[in-house]
Amino acid sequence: MKERTILYISDGTAITTESLGNSLLSQFPDIAFKSKIYPYIDSLERAQKLLDKINDKNWSQPPIIFSSLVDEQIRNVFVNSGYPCFDLFSSFIPQLSTCLQTEASPAVHQVHSISDPQRYANRIEAVDYTINCDDGLGLKHYPGADVILIGVSRSGKTPTCLYMGLNFGILAANYPFTEEDFTHAGLPDALKPYQDKLFGLTVDSERLAHIRQARRANSPYAQLDQCKKEVRYMQKLYQDFNIPWLDATNRSIEEITTLIMSKMKLKRR
Amino acid sequence: MKERTILYISDGTAITTESLGNSLLSQFPDIAFKSKIYPYIDSLERAQKLLDKINDKNWSQPPIIFSSLVDEQIRNVFVNSGYPCFDLFSSFIPQLSTCLQTEASPAVHQVHSISDPQRYANRIEAVDYTINCDDGLGLKHYPGADVILIGVSRSGKTPTCLYMGLNFGILAANYPFTEEDFTHAGLPDALKPYQDKLFGLTVDSERLAHIRQARRANSPYAQLDQCKKEVRYMQKLYQDFNIPWLDATNRSIEEITTLIMSKMKLKRR
Repeated sequence: MKERTILYISDGTAITTESLGNSLLSQFPDIAFKSKIYPYIDSLERAQKLLDKINDKNWSQPPIIFSSLVDEQIRNVFVNSGYPCFDLFSSFIPQLSTCLQTEASPAVHQVHSISDPQRYANRIEAVDYTINCDDGLGLKHYPGADVILIGVSRSGKTPTCLYMGLNFGILAANYPFTEEDFTHAGLPDALKPYQDKLFGLTVDSERLAHIRQARRANSPYAQLDQCKKEVRYMQKLYQDFNIPWLDATNRSIEEITTLIMSKMKLKRR
Repeated sequence: MKERTILYISDGTAITTESLGNSLLSQFPDIAFKSKIYPYIDSLERAQKLLDKINDKNWSQPPIIFSSLVDEQIRNVFVNSGYPCFDLFSSFIPQLSTCLQTEASPAVHQVHSISDPQRYANRIEAVDYTINCDDGLGLKHYPGADVILIGVSRSGKTPTCLYMGLNFGILAANYPFTEEDFTHAGLPDALKPYQDKLFGLTVDSERLAHIRQARRANSPYAQLDQCKKEVRYMQKLYQDFNIPWLDATNRSIEEITTLIMSKMKLKRR
């Protein structure tokens, strides 16, 4: 397999730059990419020092640079370096500027800084909220929830709640069904007042047994029959109470979050 | 202030597309941007339906489209729509293809899907890890930590640990200093074996008092004197034990994470 080194260079965290690069490089599955990330290259001196370091290496193939550098002088260190360089700003800003009929104000971009303190406070508050509510310990917080995730244990409720909170400031609670819940028909009492906030996750039973097995090998909780019973119960519940749900089996937290926010019409806070 | 609507259209979660757009638009601070996100536009039918919906609106100014649509036919629905359209793939793939001397294989891009199951499992494991360790409850997990954050209460340890886990699979624990710790000189016993894993956060005392005041108004914990005492104690500790640290006062979780990973040489797992 061919190999190629990618250098992500940014005057900020490089998070956006790396996402962009990953997106693009996923279109070249025949090449094995190795990446290095250089955040906070926000002065000419740092840029020059980094370029010297890059030049010092013996590359069998020249590395490819993905950069997001607002300052033109800093950017030009890499654009004029002789290495292939794809810069976020120089690729889009001129056209965008024409389209908006406004000049850009090149301020060191701070997408991942606290540019909106209220929005940032919402995100921190939402993480606190999820932790306080986690695993059914916080029923008293349910009235404030934007969404309450339900589903069997290990279906991904907690990581999804945290992702929604951390990234979008959504107040996401979760309710873990217990063995006792499974023996009763219908919605647990604690959830009855909040039916319109419920969103269900389900996971393929065999996959669930596999995940549980990895955590508590040979426990009753990890038996396939038990998993099948719980999954069947939840699916009947979603149907009987008309609760929106999705199958989390092959979906990442990002995908689950995107689908929940879209189906529940939740907006970034 | 001028206003403009931005439409983010993607065949995936639209997370990368939106980050890219936010980065670029932050260069035009004089315009108030309103955004709408359309994920999972992954068929011609969905694309056409969305375009009809866009066309049905009465725009005072045409909306600007940022898209990442791998499929050329789907992409062309928007590229040829008459609206200004900035597509991630068509902007970079041709040049990148030349540079890599390989044709792109347009597969619906799945940057935020579970393309690497091991890496994904690491992320979920890391979230579990942080929750299990949270707030000093999991000292027995410290041997497995990649990093142990220390700092006064409300300096951002828990959200940062969760962010590192969720996004990079880093096993991040935290140790909250208690009133008892503050009365002893030196490192708490629980931390002594792990000195090389410690990373310190600090926050400006006035800011800290403000944050604590919002949570527990008028408690001794929220008094400025108390905050000053704790912050001074931590800073002396960082100095005495040569613990790397940063000031979290005006930094976001993303920035704190980037700096910690860079200073502690932590890599995505």
